[in-house]
Order: sequence, then C-alpha cells, then structure tokens
Amino acid sequence: MPTEQPARRGRFITLEGIDGAGKSTHLTFIRDWLASRGVDAVFTREPGGTPLGEDIRKLLLAVDSQVSLNAEALLAFAARQQHIDGVIAPALAAGRYLVSDRFTDSTYAFQGGGRGIPFERIRVLEDWVQQGLQPDLTLLFDLPLDVAAQRMSCTRTLDRFEQEAADFHQRVREAYLARAAAEPHRFAMLDSSRGIAEIQADIAIHLQNLLERG
Amino acid sequence: MPTEQPARRGRFITLEGIDGAGKSTHLTFIRDWLASRGVDAVFTREPGGTPLGEDIRKLLLAVDSQVSLNAEALLAFAARQQHIDGVIAPALAAGRYLVSDRFTDSTYAFQGGGRGIPFERIRVLEDWVQQGLQPDLTLLFDLPLDVAAQRMSCTRTLDRFEQEAADFHQRVREAYLARAAAEPHRFAMLDSSRGIAEIQADIAIHLQNLLERG
Repeated sequence: MPTEQPARRGRFITLEGIDGAGKSTHLTFIRDWLASRGVDAVFTREPGGTPLGEDIRKLLLAVDSQVSLNAEALLAFAARQQHIDGVIAPALAAGRYLVSDRFTDSTYAFQGGGRGIPFERIRVLEDWVQQGLQPDLTLLFDLPLDVAAQRMSCTRTLDRFEQEAADFHQRVREAYLARAAAEPHRFAMLDSSRGIAEIQADIAIHLQNLLERG
Repeated sequence: MPTEQPARRGRFITLEGIDGAGKSTHLTFIRDWLASRGVDAVFTREPGGTPLGEDIRKLLLAVDSQVSLNAEALLAFAARQQHIDGVIAPALAAGRYLVSDRFTDSTYAFQGGGRGIPFERIRVLEDWVQQGLQPDLTLLFDLPLDVAAQRMSCTRTLDRFEQEAADFHQRVREAYLARAAAEPHRFAMLDSSRGIAEIQADIAIHLQNLLERG
C-alpha cells in the first residue's frame, strides 16, 4: 500500500568487497538500523534484482564457456540497466533509500581488476547506462586475502586452480582499494578484519552522516 | 576439413533492409555466385549466429514486457560481441568471406530510427564492440513501404496496431537511407521494387567489384 513519504530525498547505498569480506553479515544490521530511524528503504542486489537480471545470470552460468569477456561485460550492464530502470531509479524518485548488495564497483573490481578489461572501457559502459547516477555512499568491506580465506575455512594447501583464484581475488581487492582512494567522498572503508561490533559501530556512523546530509 | 586458403584476404558483407524487402530471396543467389567464383564464404545472421545470441533472442522474446529500451540495445550488442568474437573475426582472420543477414545498421534502423534511441548513443556501443570493424560492403534492399506491404499480402485496411507498425517501418526505412547517404562507399543501394533478375544483375556487379578490390 502506498504511504505518505517523508520529504527527505532518497539515497543510494551500495555494499562492496571481495568474497568473504562479510558484506552479508552486515546487511541485517543496516536494515534494522535504517528501520529504527524510520527510513523507508528498498534492499536489492546485483547481479539480479529483476526478472531479466536473474535470467541473464542463468544465461551466463549456462553457457559460460561460450561467452567472451567483452560479451560478459555487456550482459552485466544490460542487467544493471534493467535494475536501474525498473528498481533503483523509481525507488530514488519516490524518495526511498535503496541499498544494493554490489553495483558497478564490482564490475570494475571483478571484470576489470580480476579479468583484465581496461577500466576506461568499463567507464564507457558505466556512463552509457548510468548517465551520471552514482551511489551516495559505498561501504567497502576490506580485509587481507588470507583472513578472508581463513574465514571461508580454507586451511588446506591451495591447488593450482585455487591458487589462480587467490591471485584473481588479490587483483579484485587492489582494484577496490584504488577506486576507494580515487573517490574518498563516496567510499567508506571498513576494516573487516576487526570484530563485528567495531565494524557495525563504524557503519552506524556512516549511515548517520548520510542521514544528516539528507 | 581444413583446406589451403587462397591468398585473397577475407571480406565482410552485410545484407540490410526493412521487412519484406526481399533480402532472403537473394541470399541463395549470393551463395551460388560466390561459390561459382571459388570464394570460401561463411553465411550467418543477426540476431543469433551463436548459441549465446540465440539464447539472448529467446530471453528478449520471453520477457519482452520487462526489458527497457536501453537494456534491449545492450543485449543486442552483447549478442553481436559474441558473434564477432566467435564467428566473424575468426572467419575474416582466416581469409574467408563472411556474409551476415543483418548487422549493426539494423540496430541504427530499428532501435534508433524505429524506437528512438539517439544514433550517437548507438555509436558509443558500436565503437565499444566493433573497435573499428566495419563491413566492406553492405547491400541495402530498399523499396517503398506500400510495395513491401503488398508483397506481404496486406491488402486489407490496417488496424491501429498495424498502422503504428507502418509508421515504425517508415522510420526504419528513413534511417537506412540516411546511413546509406552518409557512407556511399560502403553501401550498395538496390531498388527492390524491380524484378528479381534486374536486382541480381546489380548484386553481381557489386560482388564482382568487391572481388576485384580484394
């Protein structure tokens, strides 16, 4: 049912980080924190977020051996376009907060840093699709690869494939750190090697700052 | 089985035109003509041409009510990227001719002229995907809308939907004509309202010119 919206304008929050950085753990905290302040928020995620996005993800998984790297990037942005047009832009226009688990920084980190598509080529698609839309706040959950690996209970010796994956995730982490350094006003860096209470105290400060800006 | 390739370098030929312009009728003639000159040619088409391309087409048809116009354009270029990487570029690199029933001019004509995506936005994706790759020869089968409609046996009064479709196809035709006017060296205009023999005599001249250039 539609309800009266507060005059406050909508804000766009994204969560980013390597696998094992603890993003999911903190989503519930963010949801509860925003609800306790009476903020009307939509929670969504990428890839996915729309029926088309889910179909594209299935399609990528089903035919992965036949998708070139550049075609994969175009498909990721096709799903993102639909996510923006169908979910993100309408929520923000209605004055709601929108929290997305991953957004375009993931493409820079994974397809760019991880797989080697030049950042300037990703930027062309970002501009084409987003036409200036950017998150107001990006929470980057960062921690050393070995800590993330320990958390995912990988205590045995890595085989060749897992070793390649570790290199890949190292490049992903470095791409995230470079993006955060280049856009310090948008990014909030969270040292995810600390305890949950410390991290959530930081998250609360960043959310409070955003609310006060709003 | 691989055979010795002639020293002649590969050429990229595309067929374009509104629905009902007779493209398909002339594909067999082109195939026979090239074969009679000993030209090793690959025949393909868009949208499609690869397993991923066919899946994208199904996906567009299955969820068409949930695909935004911009997402549709990105999906078309994702399919084209895979088509280039998996079929077109390898054929040309191997010195083969490649004939595609539709290519990027269709996106300008249908999504641009027909549906209203600005041409300069389509050009950004074209440059991103093709990185300079262009057809050596584009055969544009052109004829007035009413002749095309007659050929498709539409002699009854058009209803509202069909009338809208006619406007759409008129804009498609105009976009094709504008592209041909802007790139006269690449486009061969074929007046498709004439008899088949006359049209095929013209096609043969354009193919012969291309062979002599090669």
